[in-house]
Amino acid sequence: MPEPKRGANDNWPGLAGRITERVHILPIRVYFEDTDFSGLVYHASYIRWFERGRSDFLRLLGIHHSDLIASGRQQEPATFVVRRLEVDYHRPARIDEVLEIHTGCLEIGPVALWLEQTAVRDNETLCRARVQVVLVSRSGKPQRLTGLVHKAFQSVLPN
Amino acid sequence: MPEPKRGANDNWPGLAGRITERVHILPIRVYFEDTDFSGLVYHASYIRWFERGRSDFLRLLGIHHSDLIASGRQQEPATFVVRRLEVDYHRPARIDEVLEIHTGCLEIGPVALWLEQTAVRDNETLCRARVQVVLVSRSGKPQRLTGLVHKAFQSVLPN
Amino acid sequence: MPEPKRGANDNWPGLAGRITERVHILPIRVYFEDTDFSGLVYHASYIRWFERGRSDFLRLLGIHHSDLIASGRQQEPATFVVRRLEVDYHRPARIDEVLEIHTGCLEIGPVALWLEQTAVRDNETLCRARVQVVLVSRSGKPQRLTGLVHKAFQSVLPN
Amino acid sequence: MPEPKRGANDNWPGLAGRITERVHILPIRVYFEDTDFSGLVYHASYIRWFERGRSDFLRLLGIHHSDLIASGRQQEPATFVVRRLEVDYHRPARIDEVLEIHTGCLEIGPVALWLEQTAVRDNETLCRARVQVVLVSRSGKPQRLTGLVHKAFQSVLPN
Repeated sequence: MPEPKRGANDNWPGLAGRITERVHILPIRVYFEDTDFSGLVYHASYIRWFERGRSDFLRLLGIHHSDLIASGRQQEPATFVVRRLEVDYHRPARIDEVLEIHTGCLEIGPVALWLEQTAVRDNETLCRARVQVVLVSRSGKPQRLTGLVHKAFQSVLPN
Repeated sequence: MPEPKRGANDNWPGLAGRITERVHILPIRVYFEDTDFSGLVYHASYIRWFERGRSDFLRLLGIHHSDLIASGRQQEPATFVVRRLEVDYHRPARIDEVLEIHTGCLEIGPVALWLEQTAVRDNETLCRARVQVVLVSRSGKPQRLTGLVHKAFQSVLPN
Repeated sequence: MPEPKRGANDNWPGLAGRITERVHILPIRVYFEDTDFSGLVYHASYIRWFERGRSDFLRLLGIHHSDLIASGRQQEPATFVVRRLEVDYHRPARIDEVLEIHTGCLEIGPVALWLEQTAVRDNETLCRARVQVVLVSRSGKPQRLTGLVHKAFQSVLPN
Repeated sequence: MPEPKRGANDNWPGLAGRITERVHILPIRVYFEDTDFSGLVYHASYIRWFERGRSDFLRLLGIHHSDLIASGRQQEPATFVVRRLEVDYHRPARIDEVLEIHTGCLEIGPVALWLEQTAVRDNETLCRARVQVVLVSRSGKPQRLTGLVHKAFQSVLPN
């Protein structure tokens, strides 16, 4: 019997961060691409980092693209999209620093998910966001969150 | 007498958009770099476009970096940085489309500027943001907006 | 009879640049997003700008996505993708500057297109690239360049 | 005696990748931001990833910004900048995949460093680059590579 193929995934087990006490934590290194001529991190870089945090949070919760399609209801593939963003910038970050993106679920409704996300450096919050996420089909129609999504989030909902 | 050097600036007079009825308008083409695998524009692209709009709004108002240094008070160069962002995503945009970024001033205070920005396609608002901007010195200290900044914004304040 | 809808395209006629003496020229403003903490333009920004130049060159040559599908041969949509890039960085660019991206066709073969692209500031070449572009179907198969593509490039081939 | 502060760096020991047999390996996850509407990874994303690989290679070799200033010769800070890039795109990558960026030193001269970099997925090379890097002072003057840089690279030069 052939040995199962060993992929890059297996070589880098911590790549998607980890979930600790209902909060997903993803480490981020600040590279050249994230900074601007002011010498600090460009403000839109946090928006990209928060998206990475959400993607890996879903990944560790086991929510895959196939789960986003309610069987028997629609055939179209669906993806999560951001509906509303509120971001407060408190302190700047700089090249070469290691930050953590913390992502927690505030609330899950029939069609929307509210997340809180922070960029943290050594226990200091640099940037804080509240993000509303909805599920939308390829053609643009909002979808109800499926039972699988609700179930996956049970373990990380606030008490 | 040597002819004054003719730079690229002179060849592209409309490049910074225009101000019409207190609102700055900047055209934006959607390129490959702005989209993601969903087939639509990536949500952080709007954040970059809004920054372009703000930069060109200031440019057309004649606010240059040297004006951001109050004479006699501080020597350090200062730049505008985003302090708070609120963004609502209404409708998606797609590759090759031409959008307009509309930027208007909601309010100007002693240290902060509130702007409203929208991404518009054929009179339809795709995305709307409220952005709080403050002036910060190179070393991170918030600065009072100078008289020159206040004066420049007089002509575009809401009635 | 209803008046034809007037879109953003009509309001910004020069947005895709222009073709002069077989060379496409697109103006580029350097924004915050294009720079890094060194104070200069980030090296990958030129790669994005060159892509914008190629997209608008094709647009002005009238090559639309539908032309990229040879009738009767394949049904799949196809897009141009970069196969090889050679880039030389000569001089840095800085925030607020206006550059021009010049794009010319070096050679067109049965399956590949070679373009030369430069980033120019006041007649000074900052960065020069040679780019090989091929047409690839959605599923990844290389496609022959159609007669329509060859015809569109006739007017801009070097003598 | 106060305990030394424990930073994010210590919590994520593998974040900068690792050097194995003279080659630096950095894992990369493909996120939304890296893809474009074709459904594949945008070609400039590899250029950003290669820069991350070079930064972390230098980091693990112990080359810090202070080492880039030859004592007694110049006071100005200096940074490595790309002078030439040659990139071949072989196969596409897709959202959610885990890739590895491999970086090796081909040659080190008095002023320039030649690196070979590949993006690899499960032992398959997707993209290959040769990159020439030089050291440039803040004001733009090329600098000789210092003895410390040469010494740091001794252990990773090809036989």
